[in-house]
Amino acid sequence: MDVEMLYLNGTFMPLSEGRVHVEDRGFQLGDGVYEVIKVMNGRLVWLEDHLERLDRNLAEVRLSEAAWGHRLGTILPELVVRSGVDHGSVYVQVTRGYAPREFVFPQPPHPTVLAYARSRPGPSVEEILAGTALHPVEDLRWARCDIKSTNLLAAVLAKEEARSAGADEALFVGSDGVVREGGSSNVFAFLDGVIRTHPLNNRILGGITRKHVLEMARKKGYTVDERAFTIDEVFDATGPCEVFTAATTRDVMPVVKIGRRTVGNGRPGRVTLTLLDAVRHEQALSVGLEPPPSLL
Amino acid sequence: MDVEMLYLNGTFMPLSEGRVHVEDRGFQLGDGVYEVIKVMNGRLVWLEDHLERLDRNLAEVRLSEAAWGHRLGTILPELVVRSGVDHGSVYVQVTRGYAPREFVFPQPPHPTVLAYARSRPGPSVEEILAGTALHPVEDLRWARCDIKSTNLLAAVLAKEEARSAGADEALFVGSDGVVREGGSSNVFAFLDGVIRTHPLNNRILGGITRKHVLEMARKKGYTVDERAFTIDEVFDATGPCEVFTAATTRDVMPVVKIGRRTVGNGRPGRVTLTLLDAVRHEQALSVGLEPPPSLL
Repeated sequence: MDVEMLYLNGTFMPLSEGRVHVEDRGFQLGDGVYEVIKVMNGRLVWLEDHLERLDRNLAEVRLSEAAWGHRLGTILPELVVRSGVDHGSVYVQVTRGYAPREFVFPQPPHPTVLAYARSRPGPSVEEILAGTALHPVEDLRWARCDIKSTNLLAAVLAKEEARSAGADEALFVGSDGVVREGGSSNVFAFLDGVIRTHPLNNRILGGITRKHVLEMARKKGYTVDERAFTIDEVFDATGPCEVFTAATTRDVMPVVKIGRRTVGNGRPGRVTLTLLDAVRHEQALSVGLEPPPSLL
Repeated sequence: MDVEMLYLNGTFMPLSEGRVHVEDRGFQLGDGVYEVIKVMNGRLVWLEDHLERLDRNLAEVRLSEAAWGHRLGTILPELVVRSGVDHGSVYVQVTRGYAPREFVFPQPPHPTVLAYARSRPGPSVEEILAGTALHPVEDLRWARCDIKSTNLLAAVLAKEEARSAGADEALFVGSDGVVREGGSSNVFAFLDGVIRTHPLNNRILGGITRKHVLEMARKKGYTVDERAFTIDEVFDATGPCEVFTAATTRDVMPVVKIGRRTVGNGRPGRVTLTLLDAVRHEQALSVGLEPPPSLL
């Protein structure tokens, strides 16, 4: 079996040996950002999008210089090869690094840059077609959810609560009833013939899968409206209604339950599966694989 | 010179050798809580209060069992002795520990429990009497600020912004203009003869110094009202007005500026210094020192 390899500040080592100082600001202050990138056929999916988002997030936390000197565009593929990962993901994290604990920035900072690759199967076709259940929770997170930071305690607690409730994913809902996003996914609805999702702002993360799903939906001729919807709109729908999530490691997942209530007819809908087909098709081609059979 | 010592999961070692795994949930997910405890005369100030709060916070993040088996009530004083700290602080952090990255809780968890002591002088009398400047920022933090978690990026960015603006501390203000707390302190105002501060709820941390200041204020016969105030109330005050912060390592600090505007007459007020005297008196007695001279 291959050993999961870690890139840590310029050095490759087995992941099991990876350590950071207890005064790393990532550990003490949540002072860092991260990415998760899907690996298929030993290749990184939508790598450029992820690196672009990482750059943007580093700038948001005023840490742009941290990535200089780390050629992630070549390091990450190398990690995948060294780790022998065929299907799985790469995790990347950048923090403001070690410094005696103090809230204000150290001058100069000594950032921590790390990444590792891991094998992990994606959801099976059976799992996809069975659909996923969302557990709604009040969104208690900070007002900069557009930054993919490691301040994830609210998501940890929400997703654990979802798991306890027998659901697969948490659903963050604003105090106004608006559906924002999942615990680690974006959420879409097909309502009255329109594909809806929360607009990009400080309340949600700009998901890479979200972006590609919207592009594909438009290309396929669907009407797309980046306008938030409420849970009530889903359950009050008189026509066909679908809900689905989008996330890097789980692509598009049909939502068949929210809380105790069944969404639509309780089965994955045609729009959802059409978009999932499109995602799977594009991803397969981009990594040199035959497109998988349609799920429709 | 003494070496700063670290307690890490049952072992004492030099702090410089302290490492955690890159997949510690404290590092990747902000899945942990912490305490900072003041050390005076080689003794821990208000230790029981801090340990009680730590227990409460661990329970809030469903990690109570993590502290079992770590007798912090004896470990922390031992750390202070081993590190030769006379005046400074002890930092304690508990995380849900190492596990392959996953939002939901690992079963069972292998928590990380660490603490270390560090020498650091408190503010000098001159610094105290010069007063401190607050830089107001919109409070973007999550809605569980009552939990002393390591999800501190909002505070990091706010306090760095304050530093850039030439201020000593950030002031978190709600969108309704209400003063919540400082970047790492509680904030009080003496307005119309009443000592006011934000009530204990999900928007602020229940500070240990805050608690003792309120007790002392009541004991001294002041009218105390745990009712939030706005910045406008401070600047529109017609009578004497004072503002001060309360925090573990900086006790009570008179606030003489908020943003570009001067508070009151720009000098530490009588109520502030009376309460600071009371804090210094109580702390000195509790660690076996002579009370320092009054600052009034």
